[in-house]
Amino acid sequence: MARRPTLEFWYEFASTYSYLAAMRIEALAQAADVAVRWRPFLLGPIFAAQGWNTSPFNLYPAKGRNMWRDVEREAGRLGLPPLTRPDPFPQNSLSATRAAIHAADQPWLVPFSKAVFDGAYAKGRSIAEPSAVAAILDTLGLDGPATLRAASSESNKGRLKLAGEEAKSRGIYGAPSFLTEDGELFWGNDRLEQALDWAAGNRPGAMR
Amino acid sequence: MARRPTLEFWYEFASTYSYLAAMRIEALAQAADVAVRWRPFLLGPIFAAQGWNTSPFNLYPAKGRNMWRDVEREAGRLGLPPLTRPDPFPQNSLSATRAAIHAADQPWLVPFSKAVFDGAYAKGRSIAEPSAVAAILDTLGLDGPATLRAASSESNKGRLKLAGEEAKSRGIYGAPSFLTEDGELFWGNDRLEQALDWAAGNRPGAMR
Repeated sequence: MARRPTLEFWYEFASTYSYLAAMRIEALAQAADVAVRWRPFLLGPIFAAQGWNTSPFNLYPAKGRNMWRDVEREAGRLGLPPLTRPDPFPQNSLSATRAAIHAADQPWLVPFSKAVFDGAYAKGRSIAEPSAVAAILDTLGLDGPATLRAASSESNKGRLKLAGEEAKSRGIYGAPSFLTEDGELFWGNDRLEQALDWAAGNRPGAMR
Repeated sequence: MARRPTLEFWYEFASTYSYLAAMRIEALAQAADVAVRWRPFLLGPIFAAQGWNTSPFNLYPAKGRNMWRDVEREAGRLGLPPLTRPDPFPQNSLSATRAAIHAADQPWLVPFSKAVFDGAYAKGRSIAEPSAVAAILDTLGLDGPATLRAASSESNKGRLKLAGEEAKSRGIYGAPSFLTEDGELFWGNDRLEQALDWAAGNRPGAMR
């Protein structure tokens, strides 16, 4: 059996377009015969480094208004449930991201991540408090409180920090982002198809 | 003959993604049976109002690096010539935009606009100096210097200013942007297809 190329999917639970990408990447990747490595990370430190203390969608109100309308439209187009807007936005994603980092290489990383996104953007639930994250873990048949304790260990915190440093060093400045094995970076849900094409070896024209 | 719906295409000559949209909007609009109204404007005042003194692609270097790579890739995918990067970037687009505003409702607005974009992003030419704009006008069989003089009239400057105020009041914060007759705003070259769908009356799911 031929080795499938891998695409890294870098996502942030507080990111609306990461939600859209998370809900469609599996089917598209399967069709493209590309494996996906889910890479949770925190955008906060990257935004802070460029002088932003919150989402650019809050800092620039016209941009923010159109983002909400756009995500509503795109969710409708993709057949997703009507969008619910997290309040406050962005949600504090620290607990959920720690749990996702702890889940690396575990079979529950993807269902957990999709459940967090679904809670925030389709069910209108908070995903910020540790108790909310524990409840999501419980619904997946995991021990929520014990998982959160493990996710709060110093070694797991270190892995989360390392993921952020890796994101920055690889040129990531927003979410979702897609990275191919040869280091090609694609930013935004709108580039998922192009990233999969690139990973699968379908390059436009003379591009290398 | 049925009346075709109209989509407004708001573009800025200094905007790389406006270039991509300008080069593909005619064929896509024809296929969707939608009329396009080309609306040149200046992003500078809108950026200045949110505290930016240059393009965000210069203010945020990681974002800028990936933008150039992305536009290269997208130009390749669309079958456009290899991208040339204007130096300096962004180009001062005042003279070209004044001429385009002067060309409103004239049959040469679209060929002129496409020639400016082609000069900047495919031929590697400056589009900043009045002489450069006059040369483009000349190639279209117009009287370059006379057209630039008319474009510099107080009444035309007033129309340019008015276009900027209209953009802002209609929620525009970047380019390209697409506005439907019922006021639906779509931002970015990546939303051209959705904007045409919306204009043509093809709405996703239950959206109004």
